[in-house]
Amino acid sequence: MFDKEYDVIVVGGGHAGAEAAAAASTMGSKTLLVTMNLQTIGQMSCNPAMGGIAKGQIVREIDALGGYSGIVADKSAIQFKMLNKSKGPAMWSPRAQNDRMRFAEEWRLALENIPDLDFYQDMVSGLILDGDRVIGVRTSLGLEIRTKAVVLTNGTFLNGLIHIGDKQFGGGRAGERAATGITEQLVSLGFESGRMKTGTPPRVDGRSLDYSIMIPQPGDSKPDKFSYLDTPILKAQRDCFMTHTSPVVHELLREGFDRSPMFNGRIKSVGPRYCPSIEDKINRFADRDSHQIFVEPEGWNTVEVYVNGFSTSLPEEVQFRALRSVKGFEKVKFFRPGYAIEYDYFPPTQLRHTLETKLVGNLYFAGQINGTTGYEEAASQGLMAGINAHLKLNERDPFILSRDEAYIGVLVDDLITKGTEEPYRMFTSRAEYRTLLRQDNADLRLTPKGYEIGLASKERLERMEEKERKSNQFVRFFKETSIGPEEINPILESVDSAVVKQSDKMFKVFSRPRVTMGHMLQLGSVADFVKEKGLNAEVMEQTEIQVKYAGYIAKEKNNADKLQRLENVKIPEDFNYSELNSLSFEAREKLRKIRPTTISQASRISGVSPNDISVLLVYMGR
Amino acid sequence: MFDKEYDVIVVGGGHAGAEAAAAASTMGSKTLLVTMNLQTIGQMSCNPAMGGIAKGQIVREIDALGGYSGIVADKSAIQFKMLNKSKGPAMWSPRAQNDRMRFAEEWRLALENIPDLDFYQDMVSGLILDGDRVIGVRTSLGLEIRTKAVVLTNGTFLNGLIHIGDKQFGGGRAGERAATGITEQLVSLGFESGRMKTGTPPRVDGRSLDYSIMIPQPGDSKPDKFSYLDTPILKAQRDCFMTHTSPVVHELLREGFDRSPMFNGRIKSVGPRYCPSIEDKINRFADRDSHQIFVEPEGWNTVEVYVNGFSTSLPEEVQFRALRSVKGFEKVKFFRPGYAIEYDYFPPTQLRHTLETKLVGNLYFAGQINGTTGYEEAASQGLMAGINAHLKLNERDPFILSRDEAYIGVLVDDLITKGTEEPYRMFTSRAEYRTLLRQDNADLRLTPKGYEIGLASKERLERMEEKERKSNQFVRFFKETSIGPEEINPILESVDSAVVKQSDKMFKVFSRPRVTMGHMLQLGSVADFVKEKGLNAEVMEQTEIQVKYAGYIAKEKNNADKLQRLENVKIPEDFNYSELNSLSFEAREKLRKIRPTTISQASRISGVSPNDISVLLVYMGR
Repeated sequence: MFDKEYDVIVVGGGHAGAEAAAAASTMGSKTLLVTMNLQTIGQMSCNPAMGGIAKGQIVREIDALGGYSGIVADKSAIQFKMLNKSKGPAMWSPRAQNDRMRFAEEWRLALENIPDLDFYQDMVSGLILDGDRVIGVRTSLGLEIRTKAVVLTNGTFLNGLIHIGDKQFGGGRAGERAATGITEQLVSLGFESGRMKTGTPPRVDGRSLDYSIMIPQPGDSKPDKFSYLDTPILKAQRDCFMTHTSPVVHELLREGFDRSPMFNGRIKSVGPRYCPSIEDKINRFADRDSHQIFVEPEGWNTVEVYVNGFSTSLPEEVQFRALRSVKGFEKVKFFRPGYAIEYDYFPPTQLRHTLETKLVGNLYFAGQINGTTGYEEAASQGLMAGINAHLKLNERDPFILSRDEAYIGVLVDDLITKGTEEPYRMFTSRAEYRTLLRQDNADLRLTPKGYEIGLASKERLERMEEKERKSNQFVRFFKETSIGPEEINPILESVDSAVVKQSDKMFKVFSRPRVTMGHMLQLGSVADFVKEKGLNAEVMEQTEIQVKYAGYIAKEKNNADKLQRLENVKIPEDFNYSELNSLSFEAREKLRKIRPTTISQASRISGVSPNDISVLLVYMGR
Repeated sequence: MFDKEYDVIVVGGGHAGAEAAAAASTMGSKTLLVTMNLQTIGQMSCNPAMGGIAKGQIVREIDALGGYSGIVADKSAIQFKMLNKSKGPAMWSPRAQNDRMRFAEEWRLALENIPDLDFYQDMVSGLILDGDRVIGVRTSLGLEIRTKAVVLTNGTFLNGLIHIGDKQFGGGRAGERAATGITEQLVSLGFESGRMKTGTPPRVDGRSLDYSIMIPQPGDSKPDKFSYLDTPILKAQRDCFMTHTSPVVHELLREGFDRSPMFNGRIKSVGPRYCPSIEDKINRFADRDSHQIFVEPEGWNTVEVYVNGFSTSLPEEVQFRALRSVKGFEKVKFFRPGYAIEYDYFPPTQLRHTLETKLVGNLYFAGQINGTTGYEEAASQGLMAGINAHLKLNERDPFILSRDEAYIGVLVDDLITKGTEEPYRMFTSRAEYRTLLRQDNADLRLTPKGYEIGLASKERLERMEEKERKSNQFVRFFKETSIGPEEINPILESVDSAVVKQSDKMFKVFSRPRVTMGHMLQLGSVADFVKEKGLNAEVMEQTEIQVKYAGYIAKEKNNADKLQRLENVKIPEDFNYSELNSLSFEAREKLRKIRPTTISQASRISGVSPNDISVLLVYMGR
């Protein structure tokens, strides 16, 4: 059937699989994407949205490196919002609502446009190994396809088990079958596996809702977008709506608790703490008598609606009765009930920083198989796995992002260093250097790297370089140009800032709180400079951030540099911790298991104390 | 969950289910469409095309009655052709290539726009009965939904079993699970069931084909469309391509025959005679060393391609090797192999003309569950079942089309009178009165009826009435207006037709072979009339057919009227054939089973002889 050996086979066509396949093939690896259903590539299994806090930053990073999630999200967006705009720029987080069907279609078409990427519809049921190296996959049709590397992105499909009330049945998503075979084989090879759980709310008929008594949640009046490339900006948007649960709703839900698979022990695995089911919220926060519900349209034209905040695996009639007591949902009609799904994952401490497994060479894991949750988390892992699979096959250095370079770096390092006992999602609080890891500068941080490895295009690099050059020029202008009291004081007075008595550099007044780029542009010389240099909104935003947050950024860079020193102290992969008696017992155990590659990584392992790090430093320093 | 009783529940969302749901709800029945996957409503399971010989006429009939297949096909078309344009208008058959994704999306959006139609995603696993009447459905989630009528449109999903070579696995379509429960219950209720088989070819990567050595198959230079409403006309089209199998290809395929489920007895059911697999063609027509293959794009932008003419269930590597020997396919890459599927059907002699089952009241069957094949056949049955379910609930007369009124009438009458031992598809040859049942006049034949039952819109009726009025005017103009030799002879000479010596009615010369509307329009008085009355292309075409085929049409009308007399002799439903000793034994058996409603229907039952009909006529005449 396949008369050649592939370089990379990607198993699964969700967010992780699609990015992995795109990355490996764009870089030049002959790649095959195998999925159980070619019609469901790029499916949004849960909510019809991309981005959000910390997640939006990840989408920007994927885009900056040359991935597709941002482009696909932009092309299929129906609403765009920059969250946290009232806070500092480290917190700004882009988020889009998407047309579910368009999103999948755009992914499919994007992938079809990559010359070195092939497709095949079948279920991969096993791996073919040569010693401790993967050399192919076996499918449920009995095909054997040879390859040099495999990326597994099975999502929730591995032995997927769907729960609704006291009913349970196999399935990878509602209406789709589960995938079998791979877990059993990996376990027999020595992999540790576990079960995780996630859930999804009901989908309902938008025609049955009373939007007039809900609170509209429109998009931004000037919508931004994800990609640094030339994707379209929304001209029209669809509104979301907000409503709330009430004590009555909670009471109705509680009536189903005895039949809840969450509470009666049927579901044994752990669900995502920060994306809890509604019954979880009621249970854990018993004092709260209301929770928010966001009503999200599933596309431009469809009447189907996603009930964000109402994820549940209670019996469907309980879901129904309770939802009917929510304001605006009095006459709701269900398209399908919410459900929980349990699936196999493999604790990610079994991976290297490249997402290659430690046990089997050239085998990579990405996405929910690693115990994460979220489209963005999955996509970024797929991207990194696809990149690293290609690089290894070409005997090039691995591509590893550090914790001060990207949220993706934080994500991967957290996973492989700390592992995860519950579905892992990204937060800004997980990043030590979030002032550096902003959504506005993902291109400046990562596009040169993406270009260097052969993923980001020349066009991308040139755009980024122009932005960098122009914003540096503009910052320099503010640093070098002076302004007198007569010109600047009216502005300072208008924002209640102390007036100045003598001329000073513009940079200094611009740095003051409440003085914005908008104010600076009122100054003739600034306006002239902008016009003369042809500076666009992106450059102006970047400049404003560089000026106003210069102090914070410099401080965090300094901290990061310090860390870098520990990062530079490598630990040999085969280092024998048993010899170091001065290490605590727990540290020795954990270090043996995780096998950190640097002292810095070792310091992040829970159970490894500062004292243990000192011991290691002394030893490695020899 | 469902706090009301529905009027009609439609099970399945394919061509039959979508039309059934649309018809019943448009007419005013509270309708629920239940499908295993709401994302696959309106899926084209097999080739990405609608219409074709006799099938295109059916699409026009569905449209004329107020169904959606024509509208959806027009909106998603990527190519349009009027087949058989060189033959008489009875043979003209519209056919479109479609964008598979768009087709499904347009169906979904069309259905969502119907106020009285609800949706629910779940598998219907059983019916709830009250005596011999259906009153609800039971789902795999355990829900019970009450209703007054049920339309079953399960397609190939009932205990679907997919075969590829010697592998077989349950499934309703590739990548989708089978439906279970319904067959077993119906059999326990006394229904006779059987198995049928159909198949589909491989889908391949268009980028791997060499189109330069295939024969382009473009659409019409002036593409028509299906719907009589104001759907868009194609401005651009995508080409199909033709290539051929060869003795080498056949030899390679034969090598897999011993592992073919068709030949080794694993598939016991009968496949569609007129849509045979490639192995079937090679086997049955061993003297032919080449078969046509049509390469059909799956959409505007996708690279996926449908290999029409290469349906097969041979082992996938045999499919692959053989296809690689087809001209233009030397480097073909598979997206997925072809396969055969076996599924349950219920011999349709168990139905009334309304498609209601004889055994269970208010239960209707439509589509492949009745042993038919083809999107158009399925859609038209769905439409008729939906209409009749609604009419019965409202105690109105059933809506039955006779054999001289519509292909749909022929289809239903064939099914319930003759049954079918193999997947039934429509042909022009099945219609006794195909000169009456043309694609151009489906609106004139059926829109008044569609309007009368409350399905076709007022707009539809008015359009049809205007077309009828104007073409009648135009025909009358030709009948009443004379033309002299000096004016008409140059035209007659140009088409090698004998010149006339004196003035005659235009109708007479226009009736001659080779004289076309194009010629007539060269005459000043005709051109003036067209301009003055504002006649469009549709009216001119209709007029031309009315003039040129007046004789044939009148003759067939006459024949049909004669038949109508037999059609008017009704047979009581509980008629006791046992008393009629002069009937042949076989006739008595068949008549008892089929229970024809008229002498005419009785005459079409195989095994009922003209002598038997005479006996019945004498008896009924009393």
